[in-house]
Amino acid sequence: MPNISQRAQKMPASPVRKLVPYALLAKQNGVKVYHLNIGQPDIATPETALNAIKNIDLKVMEYALSEGNLEYRTALKDYYHTLGFKDLDTSHFMVTNGGSEALNFAISTLCDDGDEVIIPEPYYANYNGFTSTFNVNVVAVPSTIDTGFALPPIEDFEKKITDKTRAIIICNPGNPSGYLYTREELQKLAEIALRHDIVVISDEVYREYVYDGQQPVSMLEFRELAENCIIIDSESKRYSMCGARIGCMITRSKKIRDAAMLFAQARLSPVLLGQIAATAAHHNDTAYILQVREEYTKRRNLLVELLNGIPGVICPKPKGAFYCVAELPVDDTDDFAQWLLESYSNNNETVMVAPMSGFYSDPKLGKKQVRVAYVLKEEDLRRSVELLSDALQKYTRHD
Amino acid sequence: MPNISQRAQKMPASPVRKLVPYALLAKQNGVKVYHLNIGQPDIATPETALNAIKNIDLKVMEYALSEGNLEYRTALKDYYHTLGFKDLDTSHFMVTNGGSEALNFAISTLCDDGDEVIIPEPYYANYNGFTSTFNVNVVAVPSTIDTGFALPPIEDFEKKITDKTRAIIICNPGNPSGYLYTREELQKLAEIALRHDIVVISDEVYREYVYDGQQPVSMLEFRELAENCIIIDSESKRYSMCGARIGCMITRSKKIRDAAMLFAQARLSPVLLGQIAATAAHHNDTAYILQVREEYTKRRNLLVELLNGIPGVICPKPKGAFYCVAELPVDDTDDFAQWLLESYSNNNETVMVAPMSGFYSDPKLGKKQVRVAYVLKEEDLRRSVELLSDALQKYTRHD
Repeated sequence: MPNISQRAQKMPASPVRKLVPYALLAKQNGVKVYHLNIGQPDIATPETALNAIKNIDLKVMEYALSEGNLEYRTALKDYYHTLGFKDLDTSHFMVTNGGSEALNFAISTLCDDGDEVIIPEPYYANYNGFTSTFNVNVVAVPSTIDTGFALPPIEDFEKKITDKTRAIIICNPGNPSGYLYTREELQKLAEIALRHDIVVISDEVYREYVYDGQQPVSMLEFRELAENCIIIDSESKRYSMCGARIGCMITRSKKIRDAAMLFAQARLSPVLLGQIAATAAHHNDTAYILQVREEYTKRRNLLVELLNGIPGVICPKPKGAFYCVAELPVDDTDDFAQWLLESYSNNNETVMVAPMSGFYSDPKLGKKQVRVAYVLKEEDLRRSVELLSDALQKYTRHD
Repeated sequence: MPNISQRAQKMPASPVRKLVPYALLAKQNGVKVYHLNIGQPDIATPETALNAIKNIDLKVMEYALSEGNLEYRTALKDYYHTLGFKDLDTSHFMVTNGGSEALNFAISTLCDDGDEVIIPEPYYANYNGFTSTFNVNVVAVPSTIDTGFALPPIEDFEKKITDKTRAIIICNPGNPSGYLYTREELQKLAEIALRHDIVVISDEVYREYVYDGQQPVSMLEFRELAENCIIIDSESKRYSMCGARIGCMITRSKKIRDAAMLFAQARLSPVLLGQIAATAAHHNDTAYILQVREEYTKRRNLLVELLNGIPGVICPKPKGAFYCVAELPVDDTDDFAQWLLESYSNNNETVMVAPMSGFYSDPKLGKKQVRVAYVLKEEDLRRSVELLSDALQKYTRHD
């Protein structure tokens, strides 16, 4: 048998992925599974985006430019101008196959084997995947559920910086915690990054979904970070078009752009059709975003209230994105989540949640927590929490 | 200024890419540029594929499964059954964002930093990009234009194998050479791979376009290589849908599949719409492929005849794919190709070719050669060669 790379052997298998076969089995046994485990919204993609696809007038589905076609980058530039970043032009945007590829490009552009990136935890599980791919080590700065996952003191970041540190990765608002960074926190991060000449990679793909009238602060606001900042963006969540695979990487640093462009050229082209869909969506977005934000607000309020109503469950109210982290009265949510699919059902229905072990550098830290996505409609959320509550009683009794 | 990774610094910038600004400038100056430099066919994408996109019935453009949606993998399986590989089922296929991502997954799954892959040269320039991304070294086995780029003696491969060798990469039929491997050659490669327990990565994306009644031999025919073979496939060239970004990786090795799946999961999902387009194309492909093959045959015959008609030009007749390599009576095709765009025009027209320096591990080896793609219609090919011939006279005189 041929050799499998160390980088593959060290890739963490997501705890959620380990559950997938149990979910399939449950479905085969006629059990309906409510998916609270993934960030796949049931929100309709904008009509304008779907219509742009239905009305394509192409004879040849050609390669796009490696950096993305000009029409779509113009739509992106116009959108960023409405956010206030009027210095950006189309050359600042590199279109990628989803935010995932943008993260891949950012890490491969900045990091070599054995280099380090600092990430406040809990963090998006796939950051482990992208770093492992390049043998880059994650140095975690812990935040806890007791403080609603408030950012740890900024000094904690500085203590972790070594001569191997290349970047700090933040997700704002945060997946999985829903935490929204304050301007003061970001200002301090910017100062640290400049002082040590490292890069802040700011994953802002949930920017549109911030609640209670709060305003997200983009890392782009810190102009002094021009050479030290990469923004990760994506249309997946903004326009509920996860399958379009359209994201982008934005940086004012020509040096970083030129280096990242080499990776973009090697893979030739980002996807064409998704750019067409996203361009159309950007031309007609305001009402859509407001309406979807309102819908997520209702869902969040409902979900957090219902979850906190279950005895022994703690669930801080997230400020953005569409996830919340709940602490459950169980010792091992990996086991509980599997049990929900394998051994539990109520009226032929069960629920799938994401164990939080995959969102920490040390899986033990998430053993009592699950991530719950509020991407389902209210009626399904109600039923899901009902099932969770019922299951927790039976699981506890079963112990 | 923050650190740029060594892997980025070592990424070779494609010689063709260096020419792009000159091409843009020429166009801005009102000069029409005939693109013989890229594998972007002007052949229409199948109507069935375009119609499938126009008729999508989706409310939400959802994530596809990380390994690709079942419907598309079923279409792939059916297609491979028609090729005679009836042991393959849908689990053997991993759908990727173009053949590029399949190559990325194959290399990252097999290779760590400092590992080696053996590739007969000249080879597809982006193999350098995918290997550099993972700090993998290319060990080249040279073939030459004098023999029509016939595969070097198989023994030459074996001599290059070290304890760092993880794979042999072949492209069959070959980009850029158009060379078609014989069954005997592939048999010997299979024996070497087994003897040293390394993997043959066989890039067969041009399989459909083989001429003169010859039949391509897939590496899949060597069943004894079940654990030691990865096929790279793509819809880009087969159905002229390069912008759809749909490829796949096929292997009978569960060990390799499971490892590659970790990278697939980290990037969540391949593109959805391209799978829909490609599924439809596979359901209606036979007539299309035959017709396109006939068109390419005509173009190849014309181009090779015209090129060999220019004094001092040597161009072996390729057996497959849609490129040929021509040796020109100049000393530095990088310079000549730039001069074509920067300083030459005839009746406000010029031609862009791909210098071959980017297709060799040692750029010097390609200094007298260019790759010419026969992806343009006959009339444009005729005019392109006329321009090339005229330019060669003027360039020579100018020397």
